[in-house]
Amino acid sequence: MSDFDVIIKGGVVVNAADIQQADVGIKDGRIIALAERLSGSATRTIDAGGRYVMPGGIDSHCHIEQPSSTGGQNAESWESGTRSAACGGTTTVIAFSSQEKGEGVRSQVEAYAEKAKKACIDYAFHIIVSDPTDAVVNDELPPLIDSGLRSIKLFMTYPKNRVDDREILRVFEVARRHQALVCIHAENHDAIMYMTEKLVGAGLGQTKYHAWCKPALVEREAVTRVIMLAELLDQPIQIFHVSCEESAEEIRRAQARGVKVFAETCPQYFVLTADDLEGSQREGARVLCSPAPRSVADQQALWNHVRLGTIGNVTSDHAPYNIDAPDGKFWAGDNVPFSQIANGVPGLETRMPIVFSEGVVQGRIDLQKFVAITSTNAAKLFGIHPQKGTISIGADADIVIWDAERRVTITQEMLHHDTDYTPYEGMEVTGWPAMTLSRGRLVWDEGTVDCEAGWGRFLARAPYDYIKPTGHFPTPFNPITGRIEGR
Amino acid sequence: MSDFDVIIKGGVVVNAADIQQADVGIKDGRIIALAERLSGSATRTIDAGGRYVMPGGIDSHCHIEQPSSTGGQNAESWESGTRSAACGGTTTVIAFSSQEKGEGVRSQVEAYAEKAKKACIDYAFHIIVSDPTDAVVNDELPPLIDSGLRSIKLFMTYPKNRVDDREILRVFEVARRHQALVCIHAENHDAIMYMTEKLVGAGLGQTKYHAWCKPALVEREAVTRVIMLAELLDQPIQIFHVSCEESAEEIRRAQARGVKVFAETCPQYFVLTADDLEGSQREGARVLCSPAPRSVADQQALWNHVRLGTIGNVTSDHAPYNIDAPDGKFWAGDNVPFSQIANGVPGLETRMPIVFSEGVVQGRIDLQKFVAITSTNAAKLFGIHPQKGTISIGADADIVIWDAERRVTITQEMLHHDTDYTPYEGMEVTGWPAMTLSRGRLVWDEGTVDCEAGWGRFLARAPYDYIKPTGHFPTPFNPITGRIEGR
Amino acid sequence: MSDFDVIIKGGVVVNAADIQQADVGIKDGRIIALAERLSGSATRTIDAGGRYVMPGGIDSHCHIEQPSSTGGQNAESWESGTRSAACGGTTTVIAFSSQEKGEGVRSQVEAYAEKAKKACIDYAFHIIVSDPTDAVVNDELPPLIDSGLRSIKLFMTYPKNRVDDREILRVFEVARRHQALVCIHAENHDAIMYMTEKLVGAGLGQTKYHAWCKPALVEREAVTRVIMLAELLDQPIQIFHVSCEESAEEIRRAQARGVKVFAETCPQYFVLTADDLEGSQREGARVLCSPAPRSVADQQALWNHVRLGTIGNVTSDHAPYNIDAPDGKFWAGDNVPFSQIANGVPGLETRMPIVFSEGVVQGRIDLQKFVAITSTNAAKLFGIHPQKGTISIGADADIVIWDAERRVTITQEMLHHDTDYTPYEGMEVTGWPAMTLSRGRLVWDEGTVDCEAGWGRFLARAPYDYIKPTGHFPTPFNPITGRIEGR
Amino acid sequence: MSDFDVIIKGGVVVNAADIQQADVGIKDGRIIALAERLSGSATRTIDAGGRYVMPGGIDSHCHIEQPSSTGGQNAESWESGTRSAACGGTTTVIAFSSQEKGEGVRSQVEAYAEKAKKACIDYAFHIIVSDPTDAVVNDELPPLIDSGLRSIKLFMTYPKNRVDDREILRVFEVARRHQALVCIHAENHDAIMYMTEKLVGAGLGQTKYHAWCKPALVEREAVTRVIMLAELLDQPIQIFHVSCEESAEEIRRAQARGVKVFAETCPQYFVLTADDLEGSQREGARVLCSPAPRSVADQQALWNHVRLGTIGNVTSDHAPYNIDAPDGKFWAGDNVPFSQIANGVPGLETRMPIVFSEGVVQGRIDLQKFVAITSTNAAKLFGIHPQKGTISIGADADIVIWDAERRVTITQEMLHHDTDYTPYEGMEVTGWPAMTLSRGRLVWDEGTVDCEAGWGRFLARAPYDYIKPTGHFPTPFNPITGRIEGR
Repeated sequence: MSDFDVIIKGGVVVNAADIQQADVGIKDGRIIALAERLSGSATRTIDAGGRYVMPGGIDSHCHIEQPSSTGGQNAESWESGTRSAACGGTTTVIAFSSQEKGEGVRSQVEAYAEKAKKACIDYAFHIIVSDPTDAVVNDELPPLIDSGLRSIKLFMTYPKNRVDDREILRVFEVARRHQALVCIHAENHDAIMYMTEKLVGAGLGQTKYHAWCKPALVEREAVTRVIMLAELLDQPIQIFHVSCEESAEEIRRAQARGVKVFAETCPQYFVLTADDLEGSQREGARVLCSPAPRSVADQQALWNHVRLGTIGNVTSDHAPYNIDAPDGKFWAGDNVPFSQIANGVPGLETRMPIVFSEGVVQGRIDLQKFVAITSTNAAKLFGIHPQKGTISIGADADIVIWDAERRVTITQEMLHHDTDYTPYEGMEVTGWPAMTLSRGRLVWDEGTVDCEAGWGRFLARAPYDYIKPTGHFPTPFNPITGRIEGR
Repeated sequence: MSDFDVIIKGGVVVNAADIQQADVGIKDGRIIALAERLSGSATRTIDAGGRYVMPGGIDSHCHIEQPSSTGGQNAESWESGTRSAACGGTTTVIAFSSQEKGEGVRSQVEAYAEKAKKACIDYAFHIIVSDPTDAVVNDELPPLIDSGLRSIKLFMTYPKNRVDDREILRVFEVARRHQALVCIHAENHDAIMYMTEKLVGAGLGQTKYHAWCKPALVEREAVTRVIMLAELLDQPIQIFHVSCEESAEEIRRAQARGVKVFAETCPQYFVLTADDLEGSQREGARVLCSPAPRSVADQQALWNHVRLGTIGNVTSDHAPYNIDAPDGKFWAGDNVPFSQIANGVPGLETRMPIVFSEGVVQGRIDLQKFVAITSTNAAKLFGIHPQKGTISIGADADIVIWDAERRVTITQEMLHHDTDYTPYEGMEVTGWPAMTLSRGRLVWDEGTVDCEAGWGRFLARAPYDYIKPTGHFPTPFNPITGRIEGR
Repeated sequence: MSDFDVIIKGGVVVNAADIQQADVGIKDGRIIALAERLSGSATRTIDAGGRYVMPGGIDSHCHIEQPSSTGGQNAESWESGTRSAACGGTTTVIAFSSQEKGEGVRSQVEAYAEKAKKACIDYAFHIIVSDPTDAVVNDELPPLIDSGLRSIKLFMTYPKNRVDDREILRVFEVARRHQALVCIHAENHDAIMYMTEKLVGAGLGQTKYHAWCKPALVEREAVTRVIMLAELLDQPIQIFHVSCEESAEEIRRAQARGVKVFAETCPQYFVLTADDLEGSQREGARVLCSPAPRSVADQQALWNHVRLGTIGNVTSDHAPYNIDAPDGKFWAGDNVPFSQIANGVPGLETRMPIVFSEGVVQGRIDLQKFVAITSTNAAKLFGIHPQKGTISIGADADIVIWDAERRVTITQEMLHHDTDYTPYEGMEVTGWPAMTLSRGRLVWDEGTVDCEAGWGRFLARAPYDYIKPTGHFPTPFNPITGRIEGR
Repeated sequence: MSDFDVIIKGGVVVNAADIQQADVGIKDGRIIALAERLSGSATRTIDAGGRYVMPGGIDSHCHIEQPSSTGGQNAESWESGTRSAACGGTTTVIAFSSQEKGEGVRSQVEAYAEKAKKACIDYAFHIIVSDPTDAVVNDELPPLIDSGLRSIKLFMTYPKNRVDDREILRVFEVARRHQALVCIHAENHDAIMYMTEKLVGAGLGQTKYHAWCKPALVEREAVTRVIMLAELLDQPIQIFHVSCEESAEEIRRAQARGVKVFAETCPQYFVLTADDLEGSQREGARVLCSPAPRSVADQQALWNHVRLGTIGNVTSDHAPYNIDAPDGKFWAGDNVPFSQIANGVPGLETRMPIVFSEGVVQGRIDLQKFVAITSTNAAKLFGIHPQKGTISIGADADIVIWDAERRVTITQEMLHHDTDYTPYEGMEVTGWPAMTLSRGRLVWDEGTVDCEAGWGRFLARAPYDYIKPTGHFPTPFNPITGRIEGR
């Protein structure tokens, strides 16, 4: 029997803080040795050839095989989605079990878990709560959280999913009591609805007006509001897809006063702008997502806040709706106004290359920061570190070998998702995954895919640091325990 | 016939910017002459004796003969309320015509106008909109605004009155279209309801917990939210009763980016703190109001923001509920939790003395600033300047002659309202009105009251500067006109 | 004998807070009556014809008949300078008695006072202290301040005048002890010298590089530094000629924490930008001043801070050097680099028209704010209110009757200064003084000048509100008294 | 021959981002293997017994065998200082080669390098520049920097060392041209001198008034000033020993606008306050350092800014003056005022335990952050990463094995420095180094010291990331190249 199943030789191992020239020895799906020169026997030896050996990406915000909140059929199956992720260097996804209003949470989790058995890489779920009834909050969520689903998502907008402030507090309470992180889609629903009605009513239904119905201040408002609610109950939260400077600044202010608020952004907010929503309805629909792409100044601000640490996590928000299928982006018909076009862009496979190219190659961040924002920070934030997100002894052998020199023009043809387009068609990037290993298995190898539906395992998560509350409430009263606890 | 009806001789005339030693000549209720020495004949000559001759106060936030939003019977009639105001140096009040949910606006205005005919001093109305239906917004409000009711009030909390964000936008739209100012009671309703339930549920119903159910961040949140909504529609607003530093800072930030947001505070936030809510339910109820009194640090911050101009207006928020009557503070019973005690404190008569004593005498503000925040700024903000709020040629002879030396211990006995207590019982102040003139009529004269129910006139207001929008929207789209207008 | 020397009939009297339709009665140089209709007899009656009757301007920052700090001969005599001011609606100037390093202060004040006897309008002095020796600080300044020269100016840059931090503290100490305001030209000298050497050394001596040698952060730094020194000794200060958003923001932050720091800007920072420094050396020299003109964004920010009250005073910083005289702008020779060209622009006569046209006519400020920033605020800040800066009973009859409709194209020919150019040649403005009265004397009357050298009187100033310290030091130690005083 | 010189078994390896259970294999002073179980042969095997195995500390700010800037004899030799460091878990020090005014830089570096040959652990130098003459800037510094001394220190205060703004710019220019980091002691010299004179002059010479002569705003000012100078030349800098919230906030603001400004604090600012300066002159002198210890609120703010990343580095600022020797703290005599007492506290050995105890044990930071702020971040900032500051393949085997459970009462007796006291006498901490390895050599082993004078090696530093400029200047002009480069 070999000492190692796999040895990766001659690479430069990059972690979130460090960098080292080391061989990596893998056995039974885990990293068991790092050495200047690994001498043991190995079933397979991979020559990294001086390339970067990095933790596989963690995409903690992706919609896979999930009903849309805005109508339209999710184009991705667990198999296609996770395959595409793996080809793009990502080895863990966190997707969403979504509650419909009027239904429960548990049955949906169970059904979704069944679907997810087709995953090619490891995965976890966030629970979308759209209807926090007594039964949901008191009976269903506690055992689900305790079973390892330690993150909940709330929408502050979208008619099918939105929760109001009171409902947010109810969910925060159960999250804090049972230790779960809450992630938020933060936009002011009423303002968006109002502006949408006005725009569409004025005959301005083209996709470019999608950005006008939800200007930056609409996001800023919801961000400040949900931060207040989190402060009230001392509940750690993450703001999803921060798209603009104004929101990032509010988050930064809250962090500075000690609130446990974390932030995420997505590649689309680094490289797209509202201008990309112009053109025909079909062209604009390709980049129509929420929040809407902003300005070049906002892109720069987001990079700055990534550097500063305000924003710690870059995810795809993969939300795959076909352009040319009747149940996709245009589920409500062709030539409908922007408000009836499914929201979201696919991006599981292109996430890491775009962040690497725009970030590292352009000199905005260093290699370690790249690892941090695409993998390590998400692992910590969602309680799967150090099993994931690091090349360390004992960690799962989820690894991407990165070819930093490769120049690639992104096209739909080269991608492995089931969505029928990419919003980045024609974009040139430098840097692409050469190989991806999922628990030691080489699932992407220089163009060859060796994914296996069902290889992926569900990641149950125990309580962890990031979901610990600070212990400080605005008054001496602890509303969770109902006791006066002083300060 | 005399040249003048009244001459006030030998006073120091103080306006919002200036100060002058001048005799004041009054004819037909208006000021027609200021002179070093007025030589004409006069029916009556008042010797000011070196005291300050200042514009009568304008109390632009007082609840008179109006149903409560939290239950309880308003203890003040138009006659008693305006008499009390006059005795405290105030010569104009702006009270509230309140819509109940399910009812219309116009009928209530008409009924309220009927009651107001008993006023002893001049007055105007804000329209409280609690239910902005199509009929209200499209049919009722426009003619009311056009008829001179150029201010609307919205509550973001209180079950009977609160409007949600969508409703706020609807009202902002009609206000902007027809030119009215909107004033806001800004507190996050859901957070308050949640905290109240938790506190009361934990057996913490004492009045001191009223402050805990609505900590400062609950106000800060609503302030930032309504400012966003105002920015979206470019609608000038005033935030009512700013009670804490956090809110004032958010308002200041918005002012700095050009938003037309104005701010008011009240004497209770200068001199009371949350500690005053302690003691028995009966004791605490005397100072129970919303927002709740805060800390000494907040008091200092409010004075600072008055000095800086962030806050321009100090009103009483006179909300008179009797302590010892069954339909007053304790309408819901004795020994009820804080959440069932009527909110508000009386203060029409004590407003100017407290602001003078704490502000001018303590050296926090100068005389001109005193005039500005108790009279002139409100006159401008609500469109009754220069008819009111100034001692200038042509202005109404609404004048207070102020005895800056008089030391007074405030007691219920000395006041002229119909409420059965004052929250300031026993408080010592320096400075008190010696005489008050309403359109030249001496209604308060060194302890003698000569008010006449019906003397007061309704002030219809034409469009004016402060309600002009800036013309800037977040996008090139003007949602009021439905047109793209560029920037 | 007439009741009045002059009556101004039919005007709209505008003060810093108020506006009134009133006749103005003047006797012995003072305003003694305001009335709806003045009926007494008058030597002269002026028909204002519905035009604005406003307090004459106060230009509290102008260099008249004073040696330059950068070389070059000041082109203005007390006669020409004050005549020009009067023709532009200004009735009070505050100019500078300048100490040279190595000389004393008192002798210069006396010599300057002698020259100033030729003034056509009232005037005061700031004392420029360039060399705060023991004798100056201990012996000379105290009696000068006590005699009514209650303002001192310090330069943080310019080799001939600059004082270092230690010297600033010495001057602050004597100012605080004897009650004087200190005004500051705030730019970081070392940074400017360094950049100048680098630019000129690189052959970049054209006037456009004047702006590059002193970018905004150089001003921001000096502003924050001198504010710290003021906080240390609790000394009220005014920052002269704030030119950029960054400085204004720092001032605003300091004001918010309670520091008594006031701010001034000038018309050149409202209407010129760094682009105006381009062109030939001769062209660029016409607008070369310090701080350098900035960007359009800075102009907008300055207006915003005027509206917000951060900046309260708009002066000319009249610094008159001839373009075509050998001892003017080009005293060091033709074709010299920017660093050897005299700094400053003339502007006494154009100040009020430019502020009116850009401010009031463009809708950025209202009439009262115009009066405040051109007259009243300066009167208060420098201790000559209410004698000056207001149309009130007892005030000096320093009045400008403003023709708000007149459209004027500014040319050198129409101006009354002795400088040989105006930087605003060809600029169109709306609004111009129709008549100016200095203590009741009509010195400018629709194009006719009736100034008299020697008419102007020196304004000795008693202690006043704005120079009162706050009483707060960073520690319990009061460095002025040398005692621990607690907080 | 063994496979390894040393194997550390059974420890928990903590790096700045990651944590892993791994054996560590060391050969020839470097880490060559990390593995779940290291199987090769080893000369020595250390059983970590589940304790933390962390990168040895890097103390990038310590004064060893260096003349004082305030008088007094540095009590530490290179041997004693580095021995003490090693016993406290630190394996690299960066000390100071100090230029005296009037002397050159090179000769001092050479002399200091000679002394440093006695070091027991690896080391580098910062060059203190006190007199940046042409010769120093043009001739001496460039080859020194190129030879690997890539950091310079400037003092903005202390008569013997302080440089003015112009001198700072000169040094920034050479640093930027030749790639060195500049570190700053930032306090406003003139303000301190002024306050000192006033306090001492008033008979307030007790050590408690040391804090009063340099309140927080004096530090804040110098911080903002030097940041401006750094922005002007686009020169990366580190602010030394940030002691208060105000400074940290200014640094955070500058970081947010993209300035490359880094920040350091020290244990004394976490655990001492100004109150500790009270008592007798001898007692107060034990904690007298600059900046002075502040308040508890400042301590909390510093921790917050460590968490936020504003402050990345915690050093000792070891400045050792004996209390009981005539040439130490009281070199100027007993009973002298605070201004004549040598500034500084010893702390090489207690740095890591205090940070661990107050930070990790108190729950303020996690283990990885502890490693980051005591080791990794300094390694990166000063260009010795990944040779130092990490437990990675190829890194020097500078390791501390940390006993997180050990409770220790700090006393002078237990420490290994040559200074005759510790300011932390009697302080209880939890956590202490069990063993320290310097390049694989066990120099501290559970109480046994095995340091060897001369073991330590000088670390010459090549150019690195943190000293790369951003490329942005305030104007298109690059003052370093003398060329217009656009933006």
